[in-house]
Amino acid sequence: MKIMRVEKTLVSTNRIEAFGHRPLLVVQEKVGGARSVAVDAVGCVPGDWVICVGSSAAREAAGSKDFPSDLTIVGIIDHWSPEGG
Amino acid sequence: MKIMRVEKTLVSTNRIEAFGHRPLLVVQEKVGGARSVAVDAVGCVPGDWVICVGSSAAREAAGSKDFPSDLTIVGIIDHWSPEGG
Amino acid sequence: MKIMRVEKTLVSTNRIEAFGHRPLLVVQEKVGGARSVAVDAVGCVPGDWVICVGSSAAREAAGSKDFPSDLTIVGIIDHWSPEGG
Amino acid sequence: MKIMRVEKTLVSTNRIEAFGHRPLLVVQEKVGGARSVAVDAVGCVPGDWVICVGSSAAREAAGSKDFPSDLTIVGIIDHWSPEGG
Amino acid sequence: MKIMRVEKTLVSTNRIEAFGHRPLLVVQEKVGGARSVAVDAVGCVPGDWVICVGSSAAREAAGSKDFPSDLTIVGIIDHWSPEGG
Repeated sequence: MKIMRVEKTLVSTNRIEAFGHRPLLVVQEKVGGARSVAVDAVGCVPGDWVICVGSSAAREAAGSKDFPSDLTIVGIIDHWSPEGG
Repeated sequence: MKIMRVEKTLVSTNRIEAFGHRPLLVVQEKVGGARSVAVDAVGCVPGDWVICVGSSAAREAAGSKDFPSDLTIVGIIDHWSPEGG
Repeated sequence: MKIMRVEKTLVSTNRIEAFGHRPLLVVQEKVGGARSVAVDAVGCVPGDWVICVGSSAAREAAGSKDFPSDLTIVGIIDHWSPEGG
Repeated sequence: MKIMRVEKTLVSTNRIEAFGHRPLLVVQEKVGGARSVAVDAVGCVPGDWVICVGSSAAREAAGSKDFPSDLTIVGIIDHWSPEGG
Repeated sequence: MKIMRVEKTLVSTNRIEAFGHRPLLVVQEKVGGARSVAVDAVGCVPGDWVICVGSSAAREAAGSKDFPSDLTIVGIIDHWSPEGG
C-alpha cells in the first residue's frame, strides 16, 4: 500500500454508473507531487495522510469485486510526517 | 486512477475481436508527455481531462470481465488545470 | 495499453508448457529503448507499431484465462510516428 | 517479489474492517528510500530484510482472497546486505 | 514479460507455507541493476537470461492460482546479449 496525502475532492459529473456516489479524492505521494485519484472507503478530509491500496485489492476494498477502482483509501494514519515517517 | 488528457482517436484495423467497436483513444498524463492507449467508456473528445482506471478494474469498467483492457476512461473531470489541479 | 514497436522474435526452447506455440516477441517503447517480451495475438512483424495490453487482461487477450502472459499484442496501429503520434 | 527492509509498525485507528488485526508495517526498498506499507504474514521486526509480494498474489498471501492487500511480507531473508545481496 | 538475469538462490527459512519448496531466485534486469525475487518454474542456474512473468499471470505460471507469486521465471532465453538483444 502507498502512503498518500488527501488534497481535495474531484468533481466528475459524467462518469460511469458503477462509481455510484462514492467520493473521488485527489491524492499525492507528497505535497506538490504527482496527483492520482482514489476512492474513499473510510471518510477522510483534505490534509489527511492515508493508506491507499492498489491492484485488484482496490476493488474489494471499495465495497465489492465489481467496483471499478484501482486505488482505494483504506485507512487514515494516526500520526505521519513525510520526512521522518 | 490516473488523471489524463485525451489527445486523439487511435486507428487499428488489425486488432483482436474482443475489442469490438469500442473506441481506442491516445491519452497523455500531461501535454507532450508519454502516450498510452485507453478504452473510452464515457464518450469523451480530444482535449478532455479524464479519469483512467487501470489494473484488473479496467476490464469491468470497459463493459465486462472479459474485455481485454488495462486502461479505461471512467469519467470526465468537470474542471481541471494541470498545474493547480 | 502501451504503444510499442516490434523488434524481433525471441527464442526460448526451455519454457513452460502453458505457452504452447504462441510466438514471443521482443518489443520496445521506442527504438533503442528498454526491451520487454510480449505474446503475439494478431500476427505482426518486426517494425510494426502495436498496442500491448498488460495486467490481468493480457491473459484473456492471449487466448484464455489460463495463459500466463502479462503483456499481449492486441492490435497493429495503422499509422504511427513515435514523435507526433 | 521485492526485497525490502522493515522500518516500523504503522498505526491507523480508522481503517476498513477487512484488515482485521493484521499488523501493518512501513517498509523501504533501501535505508532512507521511499516508504510503502505492507501486511505482515510471517512475524517480522524492524530491521529485518524481507520478501514482499504484490499484485493480486498479495491478497491470498495475507490470508484469503478477500484480504485487501497489495503488498504482503511473505518471508524473512536469512542473510542480506543491500550492496552485495 | 521482462528479460532478467539470474544472480543466485535466495534463502528464506521463515516464509509462508504456500511457497512450498519452490526455489526463490534473485534476478536483475541488468548486471549490477536493482534486484527482485522470482519463483523458478523452469529450472535455471545463475547467469541464465530468463523471461519473467508478473501480474496475476505469475501465480498460474508458478503452478496454481493459489501460489503467491508476482514474478515467475517461465523460460530460459537461448541466446541473449544485454546490449544487442
